[in-house]
Amino acid sequence: MNFEKLLADRTELMKANAIREILKVVSKPGVVSLAGGIPSPESFPMDIFKELTDKVLTKYASGAFQYDLTEGFMPLREQVSILLETRGITATPEEVNISSGSQGVLDAVAKLLITKGDKIALEAPTYLGALSAFNPYEPTYIRMDMDEEGLVPESLEYTLKNHEIKFIYLVPTFQNPTGRTITFKRRIQIADIIKKHNALIVEDDPYSALRYKGENIPAIKTMAPDHVIYISTLSKIFAPGLRIGFYAAPKFLRQWLVLVKQGIDLHTSTFNQALAAQYLDGNYLAAHLPKIINLYKPKQAAMLTAIKEKLPQEFVCSSSDGGMFLWVTGPKGFDMIKLYHKAIENGVAFVPGKFFFTNEEEGLETMRLNYTMANEETIHMAIGKIADTIHSM
Amino acid sequence: MNFEKLLADRTELMKANAIREILKVVSKPGVVSLAGGIPSPESFPMDIFKELTDKVLTKYASGAFQYDLTEGFMPLREQVSILLETRGITATPEEVNISSGSQGVLDAVAKLLITKGDKIALEAPTYLGALSAFNPYEPTYIRMDMDEEGLVPESLEYTLKNHEIKFIYLVPTFQNPTGRTITFKRRIQIADIIKKHNALIVEDDPYSALRYKGENIPAIKTMAPDHVIYISTLSKIFAPGLRIGFYAAPKFLRQWLVLVKQGIDLHTSTFNQALAAQYLDGNYLAAHLPKIINLYKPKQAAMLTAIKEKLPQEFVCSSSDGGMFLWVTGPKGFDMIKLYHKAIENGVAFVPGKFFFTNEEEGLETMRLNYTMANEETIHMAIGKIADTIHSM
Repeated sequence: MNFEKLLADRTELMKANAIREILKVVSKPGVVSLAGGIPSPESFPMDIFKELTDKVLTKYASGAFQYDLTEGFMPLREQVSILLETRGITATPEEVNISSGSQGVLDAVAKLLITKGDKIALEAPTYLGALSAFNPYEPTYIRMDMDEEGLVPESLEYTLKNHEIKFIYLVPTFQNPTGRTITFKRRIQIADIIKKHNALIVEDDPYSALRYKGENIPAIKTMAPDHVIYISTLSKIFAPGLRIGFYAAPKFLRQWLVLVKQGIDLHTSTFNQALAAQYLDGNYLAAHLPKIINLYKPKQAAMLTAIKEKLPQEFVCSSSDGGMFLWVTGPKGFDMIKLYHKAIENGVAFVPGKFFFTNEEEGLETMRLNYTMANEETIHMAIGKIADTIHSM
Repeated sequence: MNFEKLLADRTELMKANAIREILKVVSKPGVVSLAGGIPSPESFPMDIFKELTDKVLTKYASGAFQYDLTEGFMPLREQVSILLETRGITATPEEVNISSGSQGVLDAVAKLLITKGDKIALEAPTYLGALSAFNPYEPTYIRMDMDEEGLVPESLEYTLKNHEIKFIYLVPTFQNPTGRTITFKRRIQIADIIKKHNALIVEDDPYSALRYKGENIPAIKTMAPDHVIYISTLSKIFAPGLRIGFYAAPKFLRQWLVLVKQGIDLHTSTFNQALAAQYLDGNYLAAHLPKIINLYKPKQAAMLTAIKEKLPQEFVCSSSDGGMFLWVTGPKGFDMIKLYHKAIENGVAFVPGKFFFTNEEEGLETMRLNYTMANEETIHMAIGKIADTIHSM
């Protein structure tokens, strides 16, 4: 049977995926991968899972295994409401919703808002998972400038003046892929601009809890609550395999997003939500988070040192105070894809930065490096191999 | 901020939802509900969850909490492959995929195949959750005739001759809402027809394991493997709150469905998949399923007896050998919505059948009754109250 002709028109945008092709070789034996984007299994609170599951079984019994509200399991919404308060975000449990990972909200937002051809404004570069959520709804992307201080407010303002934008997608803190953070001063400007232009921001914040130095910067949501869908996740501070995301959205959108989610998966796993509620409730997170930070902080430091010591001077690393990634920009015109193929032969993988740009002409000279999965020694060795490969070119 | 104007065009079809409005009164205190569509919490294997979680923690450790393949957790795919074999369906573990409940596959199938205006052929009546998965992709629905033996093959053939159909959606066994099953003879005819017309069936099979009498009837998938996406779930034989669905699709579609799912939720909860794998692996399902059947079988029998004894003769119940629902058709022109409102006042709720039809003019005289949630005594009492309400009209 010929299924090709059955495909919906929207699959057109989903076909092209150069990054999937290029990353196929990453898992070749003997290759050290700095290409990943996942937390270290050492960061999971393995010592308490048995306690958590026992408590959930006792406390909720069959309630943890039954169908539940699309909005989310109420004990978890209560805990997330408290967690959000620590981030300066005011949302009652009723104003908080649970999703199947952040990805689940990104899909639902796209499904709710994007009609084919609608314009979405993005940081250049941006998070690929968001694109894979948005693409099936056939938007047009408008790229906005970033620099070391994150999104450039003037670029946002220009974009809103010259385009009809459905929403703006941002990862303001320890961005994937760049590790950069939008400064406090710029966040205030950005909040003012979206209020003035009556625009909507989708603020994706998976990493802000993973801060290794410097002070917390409030979310844009705290500055323009009616103009922001704030999204976060427990994937980086608990366990990604449980697929627990959460969000706080303006009321009208919240009600619609619940309706949309009903059609997608009815609701997120009750049992996992109950585990998450227990994790947040029993002060487990407060006790565990410093361990995650102590695990990643020296890895990031090791990678920064190795980059400074080993890569040629023209390869500049963006400064980053947390998260999972560092971003290196080589000299103009330098071909990181060529470097990638040669580095693989030398036993190291990274992600060429080009793939994080929606504009094909950008980012050839950039790369994303992940430091959560390797230990410090391996990181030093791997950056050394990348340096050797650069020198050999 | 005015968000109304931001909504995607596709939300138009999602707005109207009369059933949500009408069912709001179901949870009024003092109302016995036969309106539900969920398994009894007594059907969950509560006595083994602790054992299962302990085994999973020992066996998979951090692997149960890490990001995993979009295709599904391999140990679960292996077990599902074995389960499918007992249903006569041949699929290697690689040919089986896991989804976030059946709903997750229905959404992914719709996203993959439906372009606005595409025609989807449905049984009349059909499962509402499927419509809530399909609606956002703006299909047109073509209704097909059903009778006591399920979908009428001539109606399928007529539909395929006269319309360009993207896919046919069927719940062949113990259908929601009617409890009816397509006979073996008709399944053979249906398989022949779809092969002849090169058509695709989405065969949704959540209930076939819940058989209270009669013999198993093979899935249509066994008769036309290249023309069927077979979907099932552990929600009715394990625990719905874990959100574990699975499917076997022809290769081309399978690969696309995985790509689609990646944008929706990356993957289904690894921990829950590991629990499910352990449940299927350890012969727990084999030991537990008879308990579920012993729980529901007398409830179904009690409801059938009560209907026969108490409802007026012109109210005919469809015969059903399993599942969770019975379907009653009143005399032509009888208004079940009127009955619904009066029955609520008398303390009993059910779902007026009209809502399960895509054609607004059908089904006014029908009702769906659920028997999984109430005990036998309550079922007798509730049917008695419905009978009283009918007599009072």
